[in-house]
Amino acid sequence: MRELELITQLEQVLAPRGGLGATVLRWLGDDAAVVRGRGYAVTSVDTVVDGVHFRSGQLTPAEIGHRALGSALSDLAAMGARPGEAYLALCLPAGTEIESTLALLAGLRELADDCGVTVAGGDVTASAVLSVSVTVVGWAGDPAEIVGRDGARPGDLVAVTGSLGAAGAGLALLEGRAALESPARATLHERYARPRPRLAEGRALSALGATAMIDLSDGLATDARHLADQSGVRLEIDLAALPLAPGVAEVATQLDADPPSFAATAGEDFELCACLPARARAAVLAEWPASCAPLTWIGRVSDDSADPSGLELSGSSDELSGYEHSP
Amino acid sequence: MRELELITQLEQVLAPRGGLGATVLRWLGDDAAVVRGRGYAVTSVDTVVDGVHFRSGQLTPAEIGHRALGSALSDLAAMGARPGEAYLALCLPAGTEIESTLALLAGLRELADDCGVTVAGGDVTASAVLSVSVTVVGWAGDPAEIVGRDGARPGDLVAVTGSLGAAGAGLALLEGRAALESPARATLHERYARPRPRLAEGRALSALGATAMIDLSDGLATDARHLADQSGVRLEIDLAALPLAPGVAEVATQLDADPPSFAATAGEDFELCACLPARARAAVLAEWPASCAPLTWIGRVSDDSADPSGLELSGSSDELSGYEHSP
Repeated sequence: MRELELITQLEQVLAPRGGLGATVLRWLGDDAAVVRGRGYAVTSVDTVVDGVHFRSGQLTPAEIGHRALGSALSDLAAMGARPGEAYLALCLPAGTEIESTLALLAGLRELADDCGVTVAGGDVTASAVLSVSVTVVGWAGDPAEIVGRDGARPGDLVAVTGSLGAAGAGLALLEGRAALESPARATLHERYARPRPRLAEGRALSALGATAMIDLSDGLATDARHLADQSGVRLEIDLAALPLAPGVAEVATQLDADPPSFAATAGEDFELCACLPARARAAVLAEWPASCAPLTWIGRVSDDSADPSGLELSGSSDELSGYEHSP
Repeated sequence: MRELELITQLEQVLAPRGGLGATVLRWLGDDAAVVRGRGYAVTSVDTVVDGVHFRSGQLTPAEIGHRALGSALSDLAAMGARPGEAYLALCLPAGTEIESTLALLAGLRELADDCGVTVAGGDVTASAVLSVSVTVVGWAGDPAEIVGRDGARPGDLVAVTGSLGAAGAGLALLEGRAALESPARATLHERYARPRPRLAEGRALSALGATAMIDLSDGLATDARHLADQSGVRLEIDLAALPLAPGVAEVATQLDADPPSFAATAGEDFELCACLPARARAAVLAEWPASCAPLTWIGRVSDDSADPSGLELSGSSDELSGYEHSP
């Protein structure tokens, strides 16, 4: 009965506004959801587990739900895909309050609405530990719109969206390892607890001819290396050029860390790192949408034949002087 | 390092034979998989958790992998969809041997190959408990091919594929609650440990005009009620007509259970229960594919106005005498 009650309430929280339409034909309550395909399906799965990716005592249920969907959608952003549907696999420990589960789903639903995503199906099961696995599906009319990790070429420039270090600083504040006054504290907490997937930015970067793209879940130092490895190139990143979020330098200093290094390694910012042909620089300056998070040039792509390590993090800004930050 | 090693080996186990092609354009190793859409996407998520849906001591890793994919694909079978891709979210406890994880994936891969399914993406994460969440995507060129749970009409006949009670009997044997000699024992174990999703049967039933369909994961007594509820009809099932798998009657008797009741409630057989217009009976007899599991008529659909309970399980075969079993 508790399970049926949960499922009924869950359906109410997740029901598409305006009912089913021409795109989502069947939804929860059948053996499978039925969705009209729109070109190429871009699909990613992301799982967050209590005690591994978050601690349920540190985040509200709504934040857990938001974060689970946000980190999954960030992968679609990194492909330049248009987001479509999400499918959930929710594992709940015995004794989980229905109210807490509904709050988790409401937090997830709020972000889904903001991103134009329909939660089209899912599965709820018992487990010893709380986890949320989200499969997200985006769509692209033409495979040429999709940006992988493997297209970076020597001569390309490297850019990141938004600002770095915010999620790591927010977590340090949450865990009491650092202290800061609001509003900076509140903003950094929000960046950790409710990351915004850079979907519009990913599509803008795709339209501007991005050759390779990745979202920063593990931190720039790790993720840029994935780009380099898969493209068979070397990425030269200027640490001094990294756009640090307000308050990050102060938190890093309290943690006895070098602020740019902290920003490059703390992870979970879910910003995008993209490589673009050098000729795209003018177009970015002229056309970067005002509604998007700012784009900052942080380095360049070179041939990897000199050094197979794939990534160079340089502390000197001289090397890349002349790279303007935009806007 | 262990994680990178695991991911490399995992990619080897799951790599599409013949490489990527015109359908799967991007696969593991990018932020998301990219797959050419083929009409309407039919998507289901299914999670199995150690200690809830299986016990890791009772099944081999390969059986756990097979079973996780099999139960997910069974939902596509119940829609009459053509299977396409699977996406995994694997949660592994600390200390899980790589060999055991690779064996799990090999078991899953073997079934995927048998069913023409590409494992196109996934996520591996640490957790306190082993779980496998599988998102499966099937495709249908026309939404009219898709069979939901809500289309059963008074006058329809009710059929099931294959045989019932086998998985429950297999589990009872595995747990030592009953005993049986091989080969019956081995066959029942296989039915529990390596269920075959009835994909071809689901598509055949769709082609024959099935009005409603569901897969039997919880057992006919529960699942047929879902069909009845969602169609707003009453299902009259003749327990005496149920096709029991060989050995099930003997195991049920050892468990002090009435064999047909055991077969209707034990669950996890992953057979299909379908409603078809009465006029389809002749076509089933003439056209049911020889390569498919046999179809057995077990009841009929009536109006639910007389009794809102939605399901009647009758022990008398008189009521439905004249329902032939096919082939």
